[in-house]
Amino acid sequence: MKNCIVAQSGGPTVAINASLAGVIDGVIKSEKFDKIYGSVHGIQGVLKGEFLDLTQSSSKFIQELAKSPAMYLGSCRFKLPNMEDGKDTYDAIFDCFEEMNIGAFFYIGGNDSMDTVDKLSQYAKKIGSDIKIAGIPKTIDNDLVVTDHTPGFGSAAKYIATSMREMAYDTYIYDIESVLIVEIMGRDAGWLTAASALARTEFSEAPHLIYLPETNFDEDEFIEDIKRLLPYKKNVIVAVSEGIHDKDGNYISATSAVADKFGHAQLSGTGKYLENLVSSRVGVKVRSVEINVLQRSAAHMASKSDLDEAFELGLMAVKFVENGNSEFMTTIRRTSNEPYSYEISHSPVIDIANKAKSVPREWINEAGNDVTEDMLTYLKPLVMGEVQLSYVDGIPSYPNINHLTS
Amino acid sequence: MKNCIVAQSGGPTVAINASLAGVIDGVIKSEKFDKIYGSVHGIQGVLKGEFLDLTQSSSKFIQELAKSPAMYLGSCRFKLPNMEDGKDTYDAIFDCFEEMNIGAFFYIGGNDSMDTVDKLSQYAKKIGSDIKIAGIPKTIDNDLVVTDHTPGFGSAAKYIATSMREMAYDTYIYDIESVLIVEIMGRDAGWLTAASALARTEFSEAPHLIYLPETNFDEDEFIEDIKRLLPYKKNVIVAVSEGIHDKDGNYISATSAVADKFGHAQLSGTGKYLENLVSSRVGVKVRSVEINVLQRSAAHMASKSDLDEAFELGLMAVKFVENGNSEFMTTIRRTSNEPYSYEISHSPVIDIANKAKSVPREWINEAGNDVTEDMLTYLKPLVMGEVQLSYVDGIPSYPNINHLTS
Repeated sequence: MKNCIVAQSGGPTVAINASLAGVIDGVIKSEKFDKIYGSVHGIQGVLKGEFLDLTQSSSKFIQELAKSPAMYLGSCRFKLPNMEDGKDTYDAIFDCFEEMNIGAFFYIGGNDSMDTVDKLSQYAKKIGSDIKIAGIPKTIDNDLVVTDHTPGFGSAAKYIATSMREMAYDTYIYDIESVLIVEIMGRDAGWLTAASALARTEFSEAPHLIYLPETNFDEDEFIEDIKRLLPYKKNVIVAVSEGIHDKDGNYISATSAVADKFGHAQLSGTGKYLENLVSSRVGVKVRSVEINVLQRSAAHMASKSDLDEAFELGLMAVKFVENGNSEFMTTIRRTSNEPYSYEISHSPVIDIANKAKSVPREWINEAGNDVTEDMLTYLKPLVMGEVQLSYVDGIPSYPNINHLTS
Repeated sequence: MKNCIVAQSGGPTVAINASLAGVIDGVIKSEKFDKIYGSVHGIQGVLKGEFLDLTQSSSKFIQELAKSPAMYLGSCRFKLPNMEDGKDTYDAIFDCFEEMNIGAFFYIGGNDSMDTVDKLSQYAKKIGSDIKIAGIPKTIDNDLVVTDHTPGFGSAAKYIATSMREMAYDTYIYDIESVLIVEIMGRDAGWLTAASALARTEFSEAPHLIYLPETNFDEDEFIEDIKRLLPYKKNVIVAVSEGIHDKDGNYISATSAVADKFGHAQLSGTGKYLENLVSSRVGVKVRSVEINVLQRSAAHMASKSDLDEAFELGLMAVKFVENGNSEFMTTIRRTSNEPYSYEISHSPVIDIANKAKSVPREWINEAGNDVTEDMLTYLKPLVMGEVQLSYVDGIPSYPNINHLTS
């Protein structure tokens, strides 16, 4: 029987270890495969010969792994060379596969990782290798094409909406006009920022304004939006993507600087920049918050449906490979919004790698300062369900990752 | 029977509504008091006549209230004038008390709020009023004297430690040297930053360095600490109080600016400043994260022991008043670390108002870049236990606060 290798790549999410757990579980239970090796630090582990044998993983470990943040196997930001220029690299990888008697290689990642899956697939075909190459999606940015959504996105969305709601409560307490600006990840796609709309309730409309990178951001219109809302909302709460830009494509951040009261240029992120803008042009109390890496690492607020799907996408990748498939990425096909239902399928990775999915313009309102009901309908199922964590001494406990830190 | 007023003041915490719930529960069940009114926006609600009648609160509402973030009654940053200068203000307050047949006034807050409790106590004594004035502590900063700790601190500590652990997992994934700097609230007291040490496990020492405002911060020593650790830790994670300062008392933040690569002065918070410092003097990948208001509003990660104590401190304030006490703040007296036990008591508010409790120097290591075991022993019981929230559509649901926003 042949063995398998699994690796993780790109930025971390709360769900990527759930897909790893799915692959491990699938291979352990497979009657067609023997061992499952984890390549440490993505494809680089293959090149360096750094592996963990995960075949003896207990079901308890697999369960705990599925609920843990970041990447148990570590990551890399390594782009495979073109086949023409990088024959040595490809040969090294496939020599390693042969030495280890590998029948399938599973790569869990986002856009760039699917480029690796695609290139390895092409190379396998070229050299007549029958090693199966499979991609499993993950990215908090939700910007992979073909699949309805990506693992990691739902949990990040749940964390963002929860934090937005809690920050709204925090903001409402004073009887004075104020503005809160929350900067959310997403340089090119606004999915995560859009998810902040899930914070709304029948008695709290926060965020009152939402700006995504899919439309052009106009500073004057933004200031007008704030001034229009302040008199009757009192506390105006704004969600903004880090990647918003003006009509010429210039990012609204460090590049355009506001001078502070001492005449010093104030350079900073998008939220900080808008904070200074509101402060100088509206003159009310204003604060900016950058949620930062918390939105992609907060396993304590994971979406159960997200982790369940991520696990399935890993598990099903093994099944698809067992059935002879290769050169694919597993995908989620939504079959119904309410009640939510979906199917796990697979699509040629060549149709997915190096492409990006933006928020459709029709899911953004005309003024470009909010999302539509269609967006909320899309988002709602993805944040459903809570995950029961293990706590030790009051703090969530996650698997030992000594192999990464020592 | 007389009625009671309860109000909240100062900055929000995750536990202050639990104390409010305790007071409401105590008065509803009291045989000595009739109605319980909530004064909206602190003592200003008394001056403006803005009250909510909370007497009919259901036990379900009280339970939900106890788990909700920020301040149900809203807050104010209003300092009562001295008795000599502000006779009109005091007369207005006590006239209102008389009109509403008030027997006791409960004020939940931090340092400044205890100043209000003290002043109202003194004034009541001066005019021979028998209205009981009681303070109930809350502050994430944990800097009130006499009480072992303050409600809100344990939950913020739990959130900080959890987030720190998750961010450490997030940081460890790349096989390159890097520094993560996490800026935590606390301008004058380092309790919250110290709590980040609870993130440590047997296999993750993050945060590797902890700097509190109770010692002087030396930039050269900081850079040496980083350089010393990087070669064998690879990813160095730093927790730093927003209020760290040099030996002359100057804050390490905006005031001392680093120029960026374009020669522009880079002005910002403590974390951002240190990020630039490490970037220019160590030259490794570096990121700073400011946890910001999330640490005081994240009810989804509340400490059960914190909320339980906060509730008791409110409930017992009613009992102490029923027994004839006034001019006090309820306090927590720790009677044992392991197993953790405590008593709810009360102390004269005059001994508490306008004082601040710093981290003892002996709970900080000699080098001033870590905390000691004594600190951990102190902290551990305060983050114990998890709170079961109500979720609607996947997001935590909290009480309607329309009365604050409309």
